[in-house]
Amino acid sequence: MNFKKNLSLLVLFLSVSAFAQIDKMEPPFWYAGMHNPELQIMFYGKNIAQYEASVSNNVVIKNVVKTENPNYIFITIDTKNTPASDFVFSFKNKVAFTKKYTLKARRPNSAQRKSFDSSDMIYLIMPDRFANGNPNNDTDKSLNEKADRNTPGGRHGGDIEGIIKHLDYLEELGVTALWSTPLCEDNDKTHSYHTYGQSDVYRIDPRYGTNEDYARLSAELKKRNMKLIKDYVTNHWGAEHWMYKDLPTYDWVHQFPGFSQSNYRMTTQFDTNASAIDAKNCMDGWFVPSMPDLNQSNPLVLNYLIQNAIWWIEYADLDGFRVDTYSYNDKVGIAKWTKAITDEYPYFNIVGEVWMHDQAQMSYWQKDSPISAIQSYNSYLPSVMDFTLHDAFGSVFNEDKASWNDGMIKVYDNFANDFLYANTNNLLTFIENHDTGRFNQIYKNDFKKYQMAMALIATVRGIPQTYYGSEIGMAGDKGKGDADIRQDFPGGWNGDKNNAFVKSGRTEEQNKFFDFTSKLFQWRKNKTVIHSGKMTHYIPEDNIYVYFRYDDKETVMVVINNTVETKTFKTKRFQENIKNFTAGKDILTGKSIDIKNEISLEGKSVLILELN
Amino acid sequence: MNFKKNLSLLVLFLSVSAFAQIDKMEPPFWYAGMHNPELQIMFYGKNIAQYEASVSNNVVIKNVVKTENPNYIFITIDTKNTPASDFVFSFKNKVAFTKKYTLKARRPNSAQRKSFDSSDMIYLIMPDRFANGNPNNDTDKSLNEKADRNTPGGRHGGDIEGIIKHLDYLEELGVTALWSTPLCEDNDKTHSYHTYGQSDVYRIDPRYGTNEDYARLSAELKKRNMKLIKDYVTNHWGAEHWMYKDLPTYDWVHQFPGFSQSNYRMTTQFDTNASAIDAKNCMDGWFVPSMPDLNQSNPLVLNYLIQNAIWWIEYADLDGFRVDTYSYNDKVGIAKWTKAITDEYPYFNIVGEVWMHDQAQMSYWQKDSPISAIQSYNSYLPSVMDFTLHDAFGSVFNEDKASWNDGMIKVYDNFANDFLYANTNNLLTFIENHDTGRFNQIYKNDFKKYQMAMALIATVRGIPQTYYGSEIGMAGDKGKGDADIRQDFPGGWNGDKNNAFVKSGRTEEQNKFFDFTSKLFQWRKNKTVIHSGKMTHYIPEDNIYVYFRYDDKETVMVVINNTVETKTFKTKRFQENIKNFTAGKDILTGKSIDIKNEISLEGKSVLILELN
Repeated sequence: MNFKKNLSLLVLFLSVSAFAQIDKMEPPFWYAGMHNPELQIMFYGKNIAQYEASVSNNVVIKNVVKTENPNYIFITIDTKNTPASDFVFSFKNKVAFTKKYTLKARRPNSAQRKSFDSSDMIYLIMPDRFANGNPNNDTDKSLNEKADRNTPGGRHGGDIEGIIKHLDYLEELGVTALWSTPLCEDNDKTHSYHTYGQSDVYRIDPRYGTNEDYARLSAELKKRNMKLIKDYVTNHWGAEHWMYKDLPTYDWVHQFPGFSQSNYRMTTQFDTNASAIDAKNCMDGWFVPSMPDLNQSNPLVLNYLIQNAIWWIEYADLDGFRVDTYSYNDKVGIAKWTKAITDEYPYFNIVGEVWMHDQAQMSYWQKDSPISAIQSYNSYLPSVMDFTLHDAFGSVFNEDKASWNDGMIKVYDNFANDFLYANTNNLLTFIENHDTGRFNQIYKNDFKKYQMAMALIATVRGIPQTYYGSEIGMAGDKGKGDADIRQDFPGGWNGDKNNAFVKSGRTEEQNKFFDFTSKLFQWRKNKTVIHSGKMTHYIPEDNIYVYFRYDDKETVMVVINNTVETKTFKTKRFQENIKNFTAGKDILTGKSIDIKNEISLEGKSVLILELN
Repeated sequence: MNFKKNLSLLVLFLSVSAFAQIDKMEPPFWYAGMHNPELQIMFYGKNIAQYEASVSNNVVIKNVVKTENPNYIFITIDTKNTPASDFVFSFKNKVAFTKKYTLKARRPNSAQRKSFDSSDMIYLIMPDRFANGNPNNDTDKSLNEKADRNTPGGRHGGDIEGIIKHLDYLEELGVTALWSTPLCEDNDKTHSYHTYGQSDVYRIDPRYGTNEDYARLSAELKKRNMKLIKDYVTNHWGAEHWMYKDLPTYDWVHQFPGFSQSNYRMTTQFDTNASAIDAKNCMDGWFVPSMPDLNQSNPLVLNYLIQNAIWWIEYADLDGFRVDTYSYNDKVGIAKWTKAITDEYPYFNIVGEVWMHDQAQMSYWQKDSPISAIQSYNSYLPSVMDFTLHDAFGSVFNEDKASWNDGMIKVYDNFANDFLYANTNNLLTFIENHDTGRFNQIYKNDFKKYQMAMALIATVRGIPQTYYGSEIGMAGDKGKGDADIRQDFPGGWNGDKNNAFVKSGRTEEQNKFFDFTSKLFQWRKNKTVIHSGKMTHYIPEDNIYVYFRYDDKETVMVVINNTVETKTFKTKRFQENIKNFTAGKDILTGKSIDIKNEISLEGKSVLILELN
């Protein structure tokens, strides 16, 4: 025997056995009886691709994919005939080792789960800024950014426990669904509080709690008949994501090489005049330098994202997704992602962030859109956000005088284009979110303007969404940066002097906002006429907007006087909706209002009448 | 015999015979061999409905309609087997009389006539304000308004003869089609110069000339290979229209009774939330009090308007229509009108005034629109006007600095929505018309801004239209009223000191405008790549907009620098269009420009390059 040869074999043996391990296996477990029986499990470990894989229990391996990075192996199995059980993967090279895998049982009717819809009022939370339920997890030794409540863009310590502890508050407010911005691990060195730069999408960030805490949040919500909507980010991960540091394939993310900024011109995705390079740079360019742009045209990436999403639905018993930067994704890939999820859960709702300023352009991204049908494209995305309504909200309540384009006509004009949408009941309406200016900042905490806006989204078609703190008049200046519109909710931290979670802790002003909001939301909860009734609106005259929601059982009349004076107007013009009704119950005061001939309404105010 | 009875019979006989006449017969004649063989002739005369009608030459009467007004009878004949010939209608009651009717021969290939299209450059004239070719017809004894050139809104005396006399000018300018605002009789007491309130739609207003003059204008244009587009008004007539004074039926016009103003909210025509009353008031309300709103849902009205339109096409050998206030018409009726005309003339182009500010809304009114298909509506209108591009022109050339929304992105964004249209080559592009602010007023006669705008409409997709006087820098302030944007063309009146019709008569400034415009238009005439080539544009960077028109034979590159500084930029980004081209011929200077690496262009200027 040649000594040198023996030595090299020994070295090889040692090197293989030293790394004969699986560092990551994703999904970490799966569920039996899924609609799509194929499961592609990613095993990550040093040189794992040099091993031959097999599996026990007669489970069938349908495909094995190895990439240019030997540390990954993607094994697709067929779970069709495999009951909930454990089985074992064996990996063999010079040495051999095994890895247990589990198929769990699904909850009853998991596939048929209901989701959020227009009967809901969604409450949007940034968890780092809502309530610090567990001060012990504010900092995690293994993660870069440490707690620092004194830094506006730092981690303030809010967490899942904080949300769970204040579910009474949400119930009292009358919201029925919770959308929290992302909660998975974000190991960015700064600004990780927003958590859109995730570093491990199978793990809740320890500073928010554990995966089990997240599942518990979902269960606690369900006890109260409330729903949990996960903020899913398909477009990008954070640069600290473990896979970005050891990419399975060069094209797992879009490379120029590395970072190139998106041009953000989403119109390039349907513009028939657009240059190919502009369309590519929009879609493939990165949102920001710290967020590598995922390549959903790579089937491995797409499958990874689909399975991760489904895994969370099953694991945490989710009621919906909000998808970040939906229209920046690979256009074909994101449609496949969305379809795969809704194929698995036919009633599951997904709302995508499509931040555009033209109804035809927004409609384009909604499932079965007549607009995208022009180009034979279907995103399969059930819901988009009504950003054009939000655009109107930016100024309309300061427009005391009506003109051809100013005043309530801006709101009216938004609904005039409803015919461009495939499903207006599945549009998300909102006066603000975590990326926009705060309504109560723009309108200087003018309670009357807040009432008009909130009454509007609570009574028009669509799914209303409110942003934490709006209901107590929280302001914040987008011009000062995002942290200012994402301030800590008062009362969420030990020692907070102002505890807005309870009536006694709220200021008089906060109670005024809260009481109105709560009354409105509680009223809306069971108003099917608002959830799914028809809508008829009338051209605003003299800056007064009148519309009706109605079904076979009920008619609700809404009047918004956007002038600063008390106005009296004849009701005859609204005959086709008023019909034989002669009065209406003001849902805020309980008083009966005579509507036979005319209605009087003070300036900057709203009237919601149940007609009778 | 009873004396009294005899007397009454005598009176009846006398009264019948005294009015046994036809005051109007419309159409006054017709054409043999039309696609639609049915012809509904309206006879108007005192108590004509009390007569029994018959017709000679075996012509078949298919239908006779009498209305609540005994002075009208509508007789439908079948012309299928009737050659060009004269025949006679007989009317019989106590007395009898006859009326000759003529079917004339059509021009060869009349039905297959070509029309205006994207190879044209349309010149819009207000005839009262262009040139007074015949000072003898400025006032007509029988018509209310007399000539008064000193009154801005008065009749200034321009006429058809004035246009005919200056066709050399139009040919030199390089326009290929003439759209004149209406020329039929308008007997309004004031402001009849705009002529949209017509009082007899079978008669050219004598102050413009005769029907024969109009036909001669068409023939003179054809000699020069130029086209004539008639401005047709279906929506309304003037209150002085003879039929309005003796309505055939109460519902010939929309009555409330009489006048009620339109709310002008055209969105009500497709808005699924709109109230019925708002939709009705938009469509049926009158444009202004002096213009009774025609009811195109009345088949007699509809037929009258269809036949009148076809009559003019045949009589004056027309090459197209521009239809006023298209989207204010009865929605179903106007589609029938448009279809009837294009059924008769399959290649006839009709452009409708749809003054809206949203591409989806404008697309709605174009034939085969994917947008109106949502509601199973088809207007059959081949062409609409690109009012959103015009909206951008209102400010963009003053936006020296680019922002997300300001600068050339406004123009780019217009074309980004081209996919919403059924046919972008059939969009009418314009920098101004007779109802808008004058471009050279808004931009203070800034020649460079005029060049940018005119170069744009001359090189993008669509049918460009220019407004009389733009080409010599005419301004006019819409804020001072419509008359100010409709001033007399200098040189059109005897004694005008400034005669802009000839080079020697133009000021230096006027020649600067004219020479550029003429060079641009003459160049465009035979550029099929501009008429029908594809378009690719690039997201404006630094307020510089670059786009290409190309086909199998040729590529034209257009660069617009909307900043105030000279800019040099790399051409690499445009590789997908530049391909192997290395230089371009500047079509304005004839110079060759190297495009291999970069292009330099001074501020507020445009470069049109034929690549080679």
